[in-house]
Amino acid sequence: MALKMSSNSYEHASLLQHPKRKQKRILPTTIVLIILTFIIYRLTSNNNEPFFEAKSKKKNVIFFVSDGMGPASLSLTRSFRQYSQNLTIDDILTLDKHLIGTSRTRSSDSLITDSAAGATAFSCALKTYNSACGIDSNKNPCGTLLEAAHLDGLLTGMVVTTRITDATPAAFSSHVDYRFQEDLIAEHQLGYYPLGRSVDLIIGGGRTHFYSTAPGGSRKDGRNLIEEAIDDGWQYVGNREQFDQLQMGKNVSLPLLALLADGDIPFDLDRDDTKYPSLEEQTLTALKALSEATEDSDKGFFLLVEGSRIDHAGHQNDPSAQVREVLAFDKAFNSALEFINDLDTETIILSTSDHETGGLVTARQVTKEYPDYVWYPSYLNNAKHSGEFLKSTVLSYNAEEHTMNEKEDFVRYEILENFLGIHDYQEEDVKELATMTNPIDIQRKINYMISYRAQIGWTTEGHSAVDVYIYGYSNRKTSWLQILENLQGNHENIEIGQFIKNYLKLDLDKVTKLVKDTDHSPKLSTKEVEELPLFDEYMHQLKNN
Amino acid sequence: MALKMSSNSYEHASLLQHPKRKQKRILPTTIVLIILTFIIYRLTSNNNEPFFEAKSKKKNVIFFVSDGMGPASLSLTRSFRQYSQNLTIDDILTLDKHLIGTSRTRSSDSLITDSAAGATAFSCALKTYNSACGIDSNKNPCGTLLEAAHLDGLLTGMVVTTRITDATPAAFSSHVDYRFQEDLIAEHQLGYYPLGRSVDLIIGGGRTHFYSTAPGGSRKDGRNLIEEAIDDGWQYVGNREQFDQLQMGKNVSLPLLALLADGDIPFDLDRDDTKYPSLEEQTLTALKALSEATEDSDKGFFLLVEGSRIDHAGHQNDPSAQVREVLAFDKAFNSALEFINDLDTETIILSTSDHETGGLVTARQVTKEYPDYVWYPSYLNNAKHSGEFLKSTVLSYNAEEHTMNEKEDFVRYEILENFLGIHDYQEEDVKELATMTNPIDIQRKINYMISYRAQIGWTTEGHSAVDVYIYGYSNRKTSWLQILENLQGNHENIEIGQFIKNYLKLDLDKVTKLVKDTDHSPKLSTKEVEELPLFDEYMHQLKNN
Repeated sequence: MALKMSSNSYEHASLLQHPKRKQKRILPTTIVLIILTFIIYRLTSNNNEPFFEAKSKKKNVIFFVSDGMGPASLSLTRSFRQYSQNLTIDDILTLDKHLIGTSRTRSSDSLITDSAAGATAFSCALKTYNSACGIDSNKNPCGTLLEAAHLDGLLTGMVVTTRITDATPAAFSSHVDYRFQEDLIAEHQLGYYPLGRSVDLIIGGGRTHFYSTAPGGSRKDGRNLIEEAIDDGWQYVGNREQFDQLQMGKNVSLPLLALLADGDIPFDLDRDDTKYPSLEEQTLTALKALSEATEDSDKGFFLLVEGSRIDHAGHQNDPSAQVREVLAFDKAFNSALEFINDLDTETIILSTSDHETGGLVTARQVTKEYPDYVWYPSYLNNAKHSGEFLKSTVLSYNAEEHTMNEKEDFVRYEILENFLGIHDYQEEDVKELATMTNPIDIQRKINYMISYRAQIGWTTEGHSAVDVYIYGYSNRKTSWLQILENLQGNHENIEIGQFIKNYLKLDLDKVTKLVKDTDHSPKLSTKEVEELPLFDEYMHQLKNN
Repeated sequence: MALKMSSNSYEHASLLQHPKRKQKRILPTTIVLIILTFIIYRLTSNNNEPFFEAKSKKKNVIFFVSDGMGPASLSLTRSFRQYSQNLTIDDILTLDKHLIGTSRTRSSDSLITDSAAGATAFSCALKTYNSACGIDSNKNPCGTLLEAAHLDGLLTGMVVTTRITDATPAAFSSHVDYRFQEDLIAEHQLGYYPLGRSVDLIIGGGRTHFYSTAPGGSRKDGRNLIEEAIDDGWQYVGNREQFDQLQMGKNVSLPLLALLADGDIPFDLDRDDTKYPSLEEQTLTALKALSEATEDSDKGFFLLVEGSRIDHAGHQNDPSAQVREVLAFDKAFNSALEFINDLDTETIILSTSDHETGGLVTARQVTKEYPDYVWYPSYLNNAKHSGEFLKSTVLSYNAEEHTMNEKEDFVRYEILENFLGIHDYQEEDVKELATMTNPIDIQRKINYMISYRAQIGWTTEGHSAVDVYIYGYSNRKTSWLQILENLQGNHENIEIGQFIKNYLKLDLDKVTKLVKDTDHSPKLSTKEVEELPLFDEYMHQLKNN
């Protein structure tokens, strides 16, 4: 279906907009009301905000993206936490407390978007085709919020749990026709691009695209971008120990390049805390570093924080990993809220998803008979590791030194009973897992065994088309009302990008003019494109593990 | 898991409530602000609302329930309409324009609620066990919004597309321990109950529980409640012709009992307009009748409108029927909006669902390979009838007068090609459909053939646990802000009932005192309960067709 949009774009019931029939009569009233409200507010409040906002008032924006988190992820995680921590049924997530609306997610060429088009809808505030990062639907580079913020004098940062070269961060900090051009994305992110460097802080995974030496590095051109970055003045952090030396952001010299894994940072369920920081720690480090670095500036910062691997748990249909990823995201979101409450600079937090992943449903009919209305969260709670992790554990069991019986015992007692807490398995399950050689088959079977028993359904290993949630928060009442007025209710994803642009008074068009004729991305032949996986976040992830 | 609720109930980010840290400092400001805002509004507005609301100010409430409609139903229907009517991608439903929040749906005994507990959460503003209608979790009758409104002098009405004795309307107008006690529910609805009659207007299906004569009637006690109702002064309407004589509500004498089908009114996709009115016509008829009847009163009306069979399409996993049911609901909602814009009485409209049904996902992986991000809405668009309807068509084909070859041709050309527009079927499909004798099998197969081809997924024939949407509207700015302040964001379902109670200043406790010791429901033995289907809306529906 072709992309069409009427001139009457994005009609919706806005907060301060009254139902249609009354609008005419009430509009002047509303204007008077708003003006007087501000006056009264000023007269009665005791804070020090200037009354008429200066043209370039100092502001910070923290933009959270929960990749692949749909409505069902939220309700499942909330109920899981109530179960696993024995909480009351009205115990809700921090995110729940700040829900303001929903976002329609389609891309320019598909009802079901991928993360690249989904993130470009935010970063450039426009609809583009699946796989495009910072590129419009005519394959021209488009100016991004991050670039425009940088040009306007704000500091910029990106925090992710997947590869920093993956689609979401790439859409803010690079211009490539296809998301799988990750070697090139890494170059753009370090400033090898006509516009120069726009990013001041990077914390995430994805070291592999920054160097060429096997087995960890995978760059095709033999370059070592990490060494180049250090020579160029970047502070480099390559492991947990060095990360700790950042002292939660108090000891950071910008620009900062923190690449904490060759590929993705492990799922929170699998994460060894001595080896990898949590998303919360990454976020707080970035917030401290950016707020300290802008302390004496009249410009604030723009920070992107992605809960990247909620999406991966969806792709893998792994409910145990997913709920932990959402909890880690909620924790980071909550800490950011607390952090900005103590900040003097006006700061807003927005959070949304690019799309849903997996077609997750808390309800799975396991018989032909009409289903009971039950679920079994204990199976999610019992799992000590993700299917992704356990797949590698099964594969790395050294079959040459052991008999098949020993391997079966390993699967039976170590994988199923110890790591998954599953005791009602069949002997057939054991034999299958012990003999499977394809990693995807093992992972699928493990995740199926959990989902089936917990009675949690999935309809795909890809994305789905359901609307996703929008959350908002501010440490100032005026900007909180601004968020509500603009993003309360149901919206297109590009409206979120438009809002941030307007809020920070950024000139995206100016940046687009600067980048539009750049040789952004090598022209690929149709054959080359066809040969490469278009939706590779999932594939990449499977190859890397 | 036991039902537990902390004292700090239902914390959420309210509209007028500022983020926590600032709350202390700003609370007095906010109060001053609100008071002054009202004064300014009064000074600058030109309407005739009294400034200080009288204790029993005339108000109407229209409460829409979209039974079984989850987030995915909305996005699917919106995209389907864009496709089928060749509209722009920003063409959205009327509901989309009035989204204000989401509702958590669990019942007292299950994360996944049924419609009875779901509706009682609205009607009595409390959590109860699955299957309870107007009954609390201790099996005591609880006063309902509809009863309290009636006692307070408002007129009351119920409009549905299923049986009027089904769970949702039953929870507002009866007190039974188990939803399947539909003969008894019918009695309560007509006023055979210690409290007497509370309902002034009934439009829906479900005639079967009002009389005993086979084949249509199914009452066990031999009574004919329709004749009794007529003797008692009810205006009775039993078919489309009589419905038309109501002149869209201009020619109604209350109380009105309009029973338009023995069982459910057919799906909108199957509905013969000469035999059954649409939900929109039913709604507008009720609105006209109730607003005219309250014209000279100082009390308004409470109307329940249910899009009952969105749920049935979900239970049957029939995407073609579902999108038409949601469109019919959206149309009724839109017409109600327009209707109240022309009303002089302050009127609010709220709309929500009790739960999601089917585990619907617009994405279905049909191969082991990673899925393409596609869907095929043409299969939904081509379907001229629901699976429920076509199942009966297949079954009613007179096999005795025809050869198996002739029946196969009938399935091939009439059912698949003509009614469903499916041409890529297999010969095996034809043979299966021609030989199947179990109605559920035929229905399942037809709906599977559509869903699979459209790449739409379902995970259950029951309900699921995802949060559902809340929509709101008012023809007055003050009550619109009241709705936003109370229901914007994420809420428990019982908060919706609480809001209506507070908005209308209804005394539910008083009604509860009046009904709590009534002999509401015959005590059933454990055996009797076990023998009866607890979740019978689906079963009933299958038996009746």
